Amino acid sequence: MSEITYVNGRYIPTGEASVNVEDRGYQFSDGVYEVIAVSDFRLVDFKPHLRRLGRSLSNLDIEWPCSERVLKIVLTQLIKRNRLRNGIVYLQITRGVAPRNHAFPIEKIRSSLVVTVSRSGRPSAQKFTEGVKVVTMPENRWGRRDIKSVSLLPNVLAKQFAVQNGAFETWFVDDEQTITEGSSTNAWIVLAGQEVVTRPLGNDILAGITRMKLIELAKAGNIRITERPFTVDEAINAEEAFITSTTSFVMPVVDIDGKQVGTGKPGSVTNNLLTLYREHFSGSEEV
Amino acid sequence: MSEITYVNGRYIPTGEASVNVEDRGYQFSDGVYEVIAVSDFRLVDFKPHLRRLGRSLSNLDIEWPCSERVLKIVLTQLIKRNRLRNGIVYLQITRGVAPRNHAFPIEKIRSSLVVTVSRSGRPSAQKFTEGVKVVTMPENRWGRRDIKSVSLLPNVLAKQFAVQNGAFETWFVDDEQTITEGSSTNAWIVLAGQEVVTRPLGNDILAGITRMKLIELAKAGNIRITERPFTVDEAINAEEAFITSTTSFVMPVVDIDGKQVGTGKPGSVTNNLLTLYREHFSGSEEV
Repeated sequence: MSEITYVNGRYIPTGEASVNVEDRGYQFSDGVYEVIAVSDFRLVDFKPHLRRLGRSLSNLDIEWPCSERVLKIVLTQLIKRNRLRNGIVYLQITRGVAPRNHAFPIEKIRSSLVVTVSRSGRPSAQKFTEGVKVVTMPENRWGRRDIKSVSLLPNVLAKQFAVQNGAFETWFVDDEQTITEGSSTNAWIVLAGQEVVTRPLGNDILAGITRMKLIELAKAGNIRITERPFTVDEAINAEEAFITSTTSFVMPVVDIDGKQVGTGKPGSVTNNLLTLYREHFSGSEEV
Repeated sequence: MSEITYVNGRYIPTGEASVNVEDRGYQFSDGVYEVIAVSDFRLVDFKPHLRRLGRSLSNLDIEWPCSERVLKIVLTQLIKRNRLRNGIVYLQITRGVAPRNHAFPIEKIRSSLVVTVSRSGRPSAQKFTEGVKVVTMPENRWGRRDIKSVSLLPNVLAKQFAVQNGAFETWFVDDEQTITEGSSTNAWIVLAGQEVVTRPLGNDILAGITRMKLIELAKAGNIRITERPFTVDEAINAEEAFITSTTSFVMPVVDIDGKQVGTGKPGSVTNNLLTLYREHFSGSEEV
C-alpha cells in the first residue's frame, strides 16, 4: 500500500493518513462522500459529482472545506502523485473535529477533507458477460437516502447479506413491495417492448450519477425510459434487469432471490446501454 | 485539552489521538459505542454497559478488540491518568481498518478501540429544577435502533432540530403517532394514579441502561411502571414527563412542542425517581 492520500492539506501515505478520534465523521457519521471514476487519468463526470456533493453538504449544513477549484486541484494532484491511470477517487467531507456532542458545534469549526484513491473498483469482465445475482431484503434505512452520507451501516449489512448469499448486491424492498435501490447501486428492469424502468428520484434513493447519465444516453439513443417504482415480482418476471453505479457501470442481473430473470443471460437492451455507457466513460470530454 | 485518550494500545493526548482514514468507523459508521458515567472515580453500571456492548458487537459480527478484563483495565487506567473524579468515559469499537469496500473485509482484521473522557456531560442543576422542553419530529431512523451504533447522523440532525427550536431534546414519533425515544435519551410519562409509562424494548429503541436501572429502582420503591407505547397526545396531557440517559439522569420535561405538561414544573413522581437514581448513582457499589 504505497498509495498517497490527501488529508486536510497534506499528501501522505495511506497507511499513515489519519483523522482525529473526535472527527465527527468517526463518532457520528456526520459527513458525506463521493466516489468518482478515473479513466485514463481523467475524472469521469466530475461536474455532476461535484453538484451532488454540494447538495449533500447543503442538506446537512456542512461547510465546503475549500473552494470547488481547490478541490479539483487536490483530486488532480492525487491522480498525478499516484500515477492513477484507471481506478477511483474517494472523497469524504465531514463536519470536522469537536468535543463529542450530538448537536452541531457552537463554535465554527473547519470541515475535514480526506481523499483516497483505489486502483481496483471495477468488476471483472466475466461479471459483465455472465451477469450477477441479487438478493432482496426489507428496506430498513433512514428516510434521507438522497443524501450521500457516510451513515452507511445498513448498507454495509445489506452488502454483507449479498456476499453471504453468493450474490453481488442486495436490493431493498419497501412496504409496498417495490424495490428502492441496491446497497450501493440503482436498480433497473427492462419490460416487454424494450421499456426500461427505474425508480424516480426522491428521498428514498440516491440520485446516482451513472443513473442520470444513462437516462441521458438512452434518450439520445431513442431508448424509452420510464421512471416509476417497480415491484420484486415485476423484476423477477422482467425481460432483463441490471444495476448501475460508478464502479458497476451497467451490470446485468440474471438472478433475483434464486429466480432466473429472462433467459438467465445478460439481455440485449442491457448490453446496448452498457456499450453506450462505456463509450461515454472512455471517450468523454471533461464533464 | 490536555485529556489523555486511549487508541488501540496507546495513551495519547486527545488532540493527537487519531485513527486511520480507512477505519471502517470513519468511512461506513461500522462500529458501536458506549457512554459510561464516572462518579467519584468509579464507573457507574459498568457491567450492564458491558453486556449491552457485547450485544451490539455480536449483532454486527464485530470482534471484541480485547478481553472484557483488559477493557476494564483500560477504562480504569484512563480515569486514573486523567484524574477523572466525575465525568464520562466514551468508548468506541469499530470493525477496523481495511481498503474501502461495503462488505466485511475477507481477511481477518483487528477491531479498533478508542476511549476518550469528558469532564462535562451533566446538565446544569437549573435544568433539573426547572425542567426542559422537547420537540417532536417524525421517526426517520433505520430499523435497528437497539444496536448502539455510531451510524448517528439522523440523531445528530434531530438533536440539532431541538437546539434550533430552543429545546433540550427531540422525540421521534412513528407512524402510529407513538413516541419511540429521544435522539439520545429514552422517553417517559407519568399518568394519573402515578403510573409511569415507557416504551417496551424492541428494535425501535435503544435499551437504555438508565432506563433499565430506573425500572429496577422503581419496582424496589413500589412505583408502578408500565411498558407500552404512548402517543404524543398522551404525553402532552400527562401529569408529568421525563427523559433518561447516562448524562441526563432523570430529567423532567415540562413542555412538548410548545405545550405545557402538567403544572409546567417538574412533578413529584419524576423528582422521586431522580432522587432514587441519584442515590444509586453516587452510592452504588461496583456494578
